Amino acid sequence: MTTATMIKGLVHFVFAVYLVSLPSGIQLPADGRVLLLKKPDPENAAATARWLVAQNSWGVLNTISSELEGAPFGNVVSFSDGEPGKGSGVPYFYLTTLDPTARNALIDPRASLTISEHPVGTCGKRDPENPACAKLTLNGKLKLADPKETEFAISALFTKHPEMKDWPKGHNFQFFKLDIEHLFLIDWFGGPKPLTVDQYLHPKTTENVWIRGLLVI
Amino acid sequence: MTTATMIKGLVHFVFAVYLVSLPSGIQLPADGRVLLLKKPDPENAAATARWLVAQNSWGVLNTISSELEGAPFGNVVSFSDGEPGKGSGVPYFYLTTLDPTARNALIDPRASLTISEHPVGTCGKRDPENPACAKLTLNGKLKLADPKETEFAISALFTKHPEMKDWPKGHNFQFFKLDIEHLFLIDWFGGPKPLTVDQYLHPKTTENVWIRGLLVI
Repeated sequence: MTTATMIKGLVHFVFAVYLVSLPSGIQLPADGRVLLLKKPDPENAAATARWLVAQNSWGVLNTISSELEGAPFGNVVSFSDGEPGKGSGVPYFYLTTLDPTARNALIDPRASLTISEHPVGTCGKRDPENPACAKLTLNGKLKLADPKETEFAISALFTKHPEMKDWPKGHNFQFFKLDIEHLFLIDWFGGPKPLTVDQYLHPKTTENVWIRGLLVI
Repeated sequence: MTTATMIKGLVHFVFAVYLVSLPSGIQLPADGRVLLLKKPDPENAAATARWLVAQNSWGVLNTISSELEGAPFGNVVSFSDGEPGKGSGVPYFYLTTLDPTARNALIDPRASLTISEHPVGTCGKRDPENPACAKLTLNGKLKLADPKETEFAISALFTKHPEMKDWPKGHNFQFFKLDIEHLFLIDWFGGPKPLTVDQYLHPKTTENVWIRGLLVI
């Protein structure tokens, strides 16, 4: 056993002991990362919504199905609103018309993106439907990104979803964005928080700045 | 330090070492559980879909919004298709008309439930939109459960979501179910898997039997 191996083993051991000593408020996301982050005060709806969008990497994108006679059709998608720490609040997607969601949107752009705090790992033992485990639905129009937005979409999506850049060229993936028109946020008891698109896109407080550390095990 | 404390510490230590030695194929869900489970062969669409529904505890329930002029509206909800190991394939929900989803469904029952393999923790390092990280959309009608189904709904939901039984009586939560009419499953490359409602509800193979261990840290 080399010294490097021994040191690596020791680091793993200390980290393992740290893991089992974690208080219940700090959780392990499914992908094995440990997020050390400051969740905004639930009273600050704009900061909480922006934090949810920045921290999540996937959600359900819901469209009107052209193949199921107008039924609502949700689909699991990855998204990004910007490079880590540089979120714009506007979610971008990388979709192919081989999939019904992109086909639906090109016929009827009405759509919603729904995300949960649960995958972020900060809900503790709260049930995913518990109002204190935040959830957000962005309603609007799902549109092809403008050519001038492509550079932003590439950096936003490919930094958070690195395998996307290797997805098959023949599948004709295209960049889409959701033009947000309405927000539905539940982040505490007492019903949805009042939150306008302007408040969401241009939060006036500094509470949407948070400390974020990343350790990969 | 008592003997019990020492033993507890030893168990934590052994488990911690076990955790850091886990191969990447075994993941830690956000709620800290370790699932040791056998994912069905992706070729077996019915078994894979039933496994996804049985293993997931939450998803996005999509309805036609009566308040947003017919736009598709997704909402994070908890669900259950039966007690652990006794899944029926039919998802039940505990919803209140204080929330738009239940209100929408009582006006227009068309709905879909969308779930991902990602929260289960078996996608490894695959992106949530990677076809090998399975995703399922059940389309159908969201209806109030029949009174004769209430006993099943209670045991199904309250075993997987124990805090539900203490949710405020004044909020008038009611049991709903999704009558499934169409399935959309992607669990590998090559597009959606052909899968009928009958195949899903009555899988003919034995592959939907899996080994499941649960350790809580």
